Amino acid sequence: MTEAGDSAPRVVETAAALLIGNELLSGKVRDANLERLGRTLHELGIRLARVLVVPDEREVIAGELRELSEAYDVVFTSGGMGPTHDDVTIVAVAQAFDCPVVVEPRFEELLRRLYGERCTEAHLRMARIPSGACLAGDGNEWPAIVARNVWILPGLPEVFAEKLAIVRTYLRGPRPFCSRAVLAATEEPGLVALLDAVVSAHPSVEVGSYPKWFDPEYKTRITFDAPDPDAMRRALEHFLSLLPSDALVRVE
Amino acid sequence: MTEAGDSAPRVVETAAALLIGNELLSGKVRDANLERLGRTLHELGIRLARVLVVPDEREVIAGELRELSEAYDVVFTSGGMGPTHDDVTIVAVAQAFDCPVVVEPRFEELLRRLYGERCTEAHLRMARIPSGACLAGDGNEWPAIVARNVWILPGLPEVFAEKLAIVRTYLRGPRPFCSRAVLAATEEPGLVALLDAVVSAHPSVEVGSYPKWFDPEYKTRITFDAPDPDAMRRALEHFLSLLPSDALVRVE
Repeated sequence: MTEAGDSAPRVVETAAALLIGNELLSGKVRDANLERLGRTLHELGIRLARVLVVPDEREVIAGELRELSEAYDVVFTSGGMGPTHDDVTIVAVAQAFDCPVVVEPRFEELLRRLYGERCTEAHLRMARIPSGACLAGDGNEWPAIVARNVWILPGLPEVFAEKLAIVRTYLRGPRPFCSRAVLAATEEPGLVALLDAVVSAHPSVEVGSYPKWFDPEYKTRITFDAPDPDAMRRALEHFLSLLPSDALVRVE
Repeated sequence: MTEAGDSAPRVVETAAALLIGNELLSGKVRDANLERLGRTLHELGIRLARVLVVPDEREVIAGELRELSEAYDVVFTSGGMGPTHDDVTIVAVAQAFDCPVVVEPRFEELLRRLYGERCTEAHLRMARIPSGACLAGDGNEWPAIVARNVWILPGLPEVFAEKLAIVRTYLRGPRPFCSRAVLAATEEPGLVALLDAVVSAHPSVEVGSYPKWFDPEYKTRITFDAPDPDAMRRALEHFLSLLPSDALVRVE
């Protein structure tokens, strides 16, 4: 469990995410948060294993959260934290954990300061948290809300990114991943034999192959990821030794 | 069930999607397909209710597909259709439906024509389909593969978009959604009372509210969606009648 005020980052292995919003499912908005969350967790060495995109429906969100929270070390939600009728994340988390919603005095004070005389009950809906939740990020004016192992993050990409900076100080994986990539001028089918040889010789290394059909610079990007930098380097060098030299565009 | 060669689009109500790929979970690639799929289905009046992002793991994909295929009228997969070790979608669909993988002669012929003498067994892995799957899109050189109610679509965004054009000719919802949007100069908390009044007076209309914190043009985008154009228009007009005229940026 993540506790506000921990001095050292907590080690977690697996993560899941719940992206919340009708607008993501109807194509009105292109999600920008999964990529950022994935990259952050990958750099920390935490394996993001499952992501769900669900509508603004309290029952659905609460049910999914209950399952994800039990199955994964840490869960991140994105979206549904505003003051309007379609912002149901806080009440859904509270429902998932069978606890009431309360007003967090620190947020209430911030909102009253921010909006001054314009501050209404509607504004103060943004001060609600599930009872018992922690605030993570002491130096941050707007800390992140963490209920049990669920980080409740806002959907606005700029604010979501700010909260990931807090995540970085609270969590880390058992070992960060080391990653390299090779750009090759060979089309993906021409690399299958090489890749099969490398994959079977280096089982601890995750090898990814991503074709580009319309890129003038290269045809396939091959990635190597492992917690052990030596294992990763051996797989990379094995691959490079098998790749015809005129097929190498560059190593990143 | 979607059948290749249907003359009229089949009516389906609900959809789910499975986005497949370690690269989406590690933040190496930002998904571009969900937004397009969501917009296409929304225009057709099909409700995309649930989306999952999962790694390149056959067992995981097969298990999820079995559940989604039973729970929703139609399911779309994206990714994992290339020739390399991490492309497991076809075998996973076959596993989900307990059927063998076979080579589709039409794809084999296309691949042999495309690659000529360079065509190897590795290339021909891209000719595999789950036994019993249909090909949808007769006029299309590369039809889409449809196994029961699962459309197996490629991950490359350019190719995914081409396949959506086929989806449009095969499927439609009970009634397409009518959609309008209002851009308002008011911050979201200031709209809560108006929105609550409109939402409760027009239960058949889906009202969405999306704040923009860093946009110079407007502060909140409010969307109105309904299958019934008159209901949608009434909700829109109700909202506009309550919005102070100096807060209206424009209607889209």
